[in-house]
Amino acid sequence: MARIVMKFGGTSMAGIERIRRVAQIVRQQADAGHEVAVVVSAMAGDTDRLVNFCREASTLSDPAEYDVVVASGEQVTAGLLSIALQSLGARARSWLGWQMPIRTIEAHSKARIDDIDGSALVAAMQSGEIAIIPGFQGISEAGRITTLGRGGSDTSAVAIAAAVKADRCDIYTDVDGVYTTDPRIVTKAKKLKTVTFEEMLELASVGAKVLQTRSVGLAMKEGVRIQVLSSFTDDGAPSADELPGTMIISEDEMEKSDMERQLITGIAHDKNESKITLTRVPDKPGAVANIFGPLADAAINVDMIIQNVGREKGETDVTFTVPTSDLDRTMQVLEAAKESIGYNRLISDSNVAKISVVGVGMKSHAGIASTMFKALADRGVNIQAITTSEIKVSVLIEEDYTELALRVLHTAYGLDAEDAA
Amino acid sequence: MARIVMKFGGTSMAGIERIRRVAQIVRQQADAGHEVAVVVSAMAGDTDRLVNFCREASTLSDPAEYDVVVASGEQVTAGLLSIALQSLGARARSWLGWQMPIRTIEAHSKARIDDIDGSALVAAMQSGEIAIIPGFQGISEAGRITTLGRGGSDTSAVAIAAAVKADRCDIYTDVDGVYTTDPRIVTKAKKLKTVTFEEMLELASVGAKVLQTRSVGLAMKEGVRIQVLSSFTDDGAPSADELPGTMIISEDEMEKSDMERQLITGIAHDKNESKITLTRVPDKPGAVANIFGPLADAAINVDMIIQNVGREKGETDVTFTVPTSDLDRTMQVLEAAKESIGYNRLISDSNVAKISVVGVGMKSHAGIASTMFKALADRGVNIQAITTSEIKVSVLIEEDYTELALRVLHTAYGLDAEDAA
Repeated sequence: MARIVMKFGGTSMAGIERIRRVAQIVRQQADAGHEVAVVVSAMAGDTDRLVNFCREASTLSDPAEYDVVVASGEQVTAGLLSIALQSLGARARSWLGWQMPIRTIEAHSKARIDDIDGSALVAAMQSGEIAIIPGFQGISEAGRITTLGRGGSDTSAVAIAAAVKADRCDIYTDVDGVYTTDPRIVTKAKKLKTVTFEEMLELASVGAKVLQTRSVGLAMKEGVRIQVLSSFTDDGAPSADELPGTMIISEDEMEKSDMERQLITGIAHDKNESKITLTRVPDKPGAVANIFGPLADAAINVDMIIQNVGREKGETDVTFTVPTSDLDRTMQVLEAAKESIGYNRLISDSNVAKISVVGVGMKSHAGIASTMFKALADRGVNIQAITTSEIKVSVLIEEDYTELALRVLHTAYGLDAEDAA
Repeated sequence: MARIVMKFGGTSMAGIERIRRVAQIVRQQADAGHEVAVVVSAMAGDTDRLVNFCREASTLSDPAEYDVVVASGEQVTAGLLSIALQSLGARARSWLGWQMPIRTIEAHSKARIDDIDGSALVAAMQSGEIAIIPGFQGISEAGRITTLGRGGSDTSAVAIAAAVKADRCDIYTDVDGVYTTDPRIVTKAKKLKTVTFEEMLELASVGAKVLQTRSVGLAMKEGVRIQVLSSFTDDGAPSADELPGTMIISEDEMEKSDMERQLITGIAHDKNESKITLTRVPDKPGAVANIFGPLADAAINVDMIIQNVGREKGETDVTFTVPTSDLDRTMQVLEAAKESIGYNRLISDSNVAKISVVGVGMKSHAGIASTMFKALADRGVNIQAITTSEIKVSVLIEEDYTELALRVLHTAYGLDAEDAA
């Protein structure tokens, strides 16, 4: 018998038929003897409908009132799931953010969870009642409804799992787990049985959109084991021994459980970056600060940074990447700062993609990067920039080569599934 | 300067364009220097959508969870109206039922308001902030959301007006006031400047669907002056001296303000009653109890009751009316009780209408009933039953004569507008 927090996203809650299906999945867990709490998102599309109402009412909505409007979507699905569970003969009740309560900081529409009083929830679960909690919301110290920002329901689920000391947090999505790479591109992609928090953070930050980065960070901090699995498959109730999805766990647990695992866990890609190069920047102390200071002031998130040796002595070329959505603003900031930086030319290129190889195994092994460079060079893929972290190597390539690079690297690191085509 | 509670129904809140229009009406009042609280319904159709979700999820929804789902409709409009008011430069914030709080009894989906703490609201209003309150809902002692039943927003508005000691409660509807009779039938119908609580209760109970009966009863008990007016006209901000709608006030206030008023205030009709006759019932003590006991047990609401002398000595005919929606059930109950009642025949007729003449003036004047009987007889309208109360005379006639009877009586009591066709 375990204590489990289950979380269902908007696609799983879209309409009464799907809510009934979710009720069946939840009831299987309760029938298996587990103590169950469920965190729900709003019906897919409903949050957009409510957000649009706010936008139509005013271009600058008061975030506190925006929260009052938008939080209603999860309130509806929490009530409906309770009703659907009761109609299956289960005991269930909804616990709204202000009822538990889930205390957050004051920052409306982008609040962070401060503290959850899980005692009422634990008492209910221990009595055999299923607790249904609307995700994405809480209550401020002033007693007003707050929301956590888009995708905040994953974070709600992890925070509640931590508060009730759950054995695991099952996040039901429209994919059935975390894959070695995007299975829509690489047919030989394999579902991972386990992945560490650190790997998941790196994979999420480079484009694998399975979980909110924020929720993974919180799970790592609080030591909450997450399972990612699908609400649209018929795998039945996962037992404690055999879990159908991907478990996201700590590195310690990983080392104990999975000695034979690959050096590389997964390969992610991100086409939403753009490359900027400033040529002939003076090679002297403070020059780089002159570039990135104004960008930081403009809240532009700079990712890869490479400083090349320039052709002339005392000069250098500086290349870096920014999200493509920030490209125009970045160019404006740099053009305005041309005098103080003292560059020659400002060149931008949005036709690039970042390919990242991720794995906790690489920390203790050499050769990961050189395998990457050789495999890409063999197929004529030119590397424009490189960055590394303890568990990740990222390269910037021309965007058109993205799919080729993913397939080549998936094979080179021995990740291909044996039974796939 | 006055303290005003304004209430807007679902039609007035249906969509952002209309909510903007409501915001303008509210702001006019605030700009005129009044302290303003606003009670809102859900967008027209939204409550039905939410109720249907609950019905689809389970034929027997848990009323507590039903309330969680259905109360969200007013939460959305309260937030949106606050946003719309802020975009007009006004200060406004929403106060949800659990925030004020509005305490109700536990009876989910049909709760009654127990107690409202209006202190936070009064403080906000005095500081110049407009308070927006979702109607129809409150919080139970157990800390869960309750709703007051359909149409409960009128009751919320009156209860809040009482709690904050408002000078009046303005109920905005899709009609611009209370008329002497249905203006769709009688073109010469006049809008009333004033009507008493008692008259309004009688008019509402016999078919004039302007206000919830419940809210009028509460207003009478708490001494809250109600104004009924339309949110779709351009009368501008009503001043304290000249009010565009109909004021519903106490008899005392009426006597002071309106010495010249008519004996008869209005004429209502109700086509939703059916007539039942039991012939040759034994004329002995307890016989009538044998009829109405079983109907009371079945929670069937009996209205007019007439006992005629039967043709044979020791026997009597009993006639009464019930809502047509209860007719089938009434017939079943009476057929099952034929033995114990001991009647001869059971006759039903749904082709009847009740016409009611209402006015506090009739208490001190004779001749009201005879005017009615003569006017109807002159036009060949047969009266099947009569009941009277202190301020009302009702007759039951054949349904086909409804419109004719309304026009004849409207003229007979001198209610016709002079400027109408």
